[in-house]
Amino acid sequence: MKTATYTYQITLQDVDFSRRLKITRLICYLLETAGRNAAENHFGIQQINTNNHTWVLSRIAVEMNEIPKGDETISIETWVENVSRLFTTRNFCIRDEKGNVIGSATSIWAMIDIETRRAVDLTMNCASFVVEKPSLCERPQKIPSIQTAPLTEYKVRYSDIDLNYHANSAKYVEWLLDTIENPAVFFKDNRIVRFELQYINEALLDDVLTFHKENTSEHEMLFEIKRHTDSICKMRLIF
Amino acid sequence: MKTATYTYQITLQDVDFSRRLKITRLICYLLETAGRNAAENHFGIQQINTNNHTWVLSRIAVEMNEIPKGDETISIETWVENVSRLFTTRNFCIRDEKGNVIGSATSIWAMIDIETRRAVDLTMNCASFVVEKPSLCERPQKIPSIQTAPLTEYKVRYSDIDLNYHANSAKYVEWLLDTIENPAVFFKDNRIVRFELQYINEALLDDVLTFHKENTSEHEMLFEIKRHTDSICKMRLIF
Repeated sequence: MKTATYTYQITLQDVDFSRRLKITRLICYLLETAGRNAAENHFGIQQINTNNHTWVLSRIAVEMNEIPKGDETISIETWVENVSRLFTTRNFCIRDEKGNVIGSATSIWAMIDIETRRAVDLTMNCASFVVEKPSLCERPQKIPSIQTAPLTEYKVRYSDIDLNYHANSAKYVEWLLDTIENPAVFFKDNRIVRFELQYINEALLDDVLTFHKENTSEHEMLFEIKRHTDSICKMRLIF
Repeated sequence: MKTATYTYQITLQDVDFSRRLKITRLICYLLETAGRNAAENHFGIQQINTNNHTWVLSRIAVEMNEIPKGDETISIETWVENVSRLFTTRNFCIRDEKGNVIGSATSIWAMIDIETRRAVDLTMNCASFVVEKPSLCERPQKIPSIQTAPLTEYKVRYSDIDLNYHANSAKYVEWLLDTIENPAVFFKDNRIVRFELQYINEALLDDVLTFHKENTSEHEMLFEIKRHTDSICKMRLIF
């Protein structure tokens, strides 16, 4: 199935104190959706691992008109919009129980060789699964680097690491949102309407990272994770 | 339904590098199971919140013969074994896709008033839902306090906080497992067969906690979370 829809019941373990879905758990549901659809089309991570390949998320943009509450059921529709030699775009449409569109996302992925860490030609792998239906939200834009001093330092822990032996893509967001001052007020008074992530380098177990933040306007923050001077991940948050 | 069974598909976001379900995510599935069954019987957390009451997990013991892999489906059967004035015992039986029992758990809960933080008489609330079927695993035992120096200090973050405005019960386990040295070796070479948790005090946003650990035998570790001299949570891990 080129376009497929998967349903998830938001659990009470998925919500923050506002009783609405945490952004990090939303990303987990998007990643799970991508993984399930890829697996059904025979290019899932566990299948391509047998060829020593793995999927790497490069960029993602997510827009939400409404954040679902605990106990609500959401459905996520997904399809591959295009495949080039190095990158493929996968889109998502998020609906509430009644079928109303409450959000959308678009993501850009590369496939790499586990040993050499070099990109694999995607046109051989999944070009036949393209559905030429554009994303419902704007593509992720390049995010500038942040030059301010680090807010905090962090050592990557066992619980951050996923089956790829690197920090899970959702963890970067968790770490960055945790740098926001006065979260009890911020997450009560503000609703996240869009965020973009740019994954540049992998963070591995025991890596020491620094977190950087810049308030660029009243409704936008930029974030960056660095390892020494290397950029690991950047995030734009619009609220 | 006094005894009910809920099914969960383990996602690839739920696993560690061994591709097996993380203990912290297993706890989330157990808590979700307790919550769903309670809600179906009209004493779920969102329902009792309307009376200014909430559920608090006091102790839990979990035994696993086998840890499920990513992509596998598990089912969790649950029932309330007894209800006294201050505590109720809820049991769990965990099965794989074929219906084989792969684990079990037993948990002890109190209901408190959100304002006064004092216990509410449970016999009025859920005594009629008791199924006198014993737990498949031994009850959680009292865990001794640890006198060794702290391994690390930790400040409770936004991502740790759940709908009760305190750190989620699964987070304590995440923090403690992250104190294990050389996790890439430990979690590769060892399988967790039983763990017990004793929740003593709530950890709130911005609380500064210390983590303590003691290796009591070749196959047992004890852990404790403290806030200054107050004990917050204790864990026994058998592997």
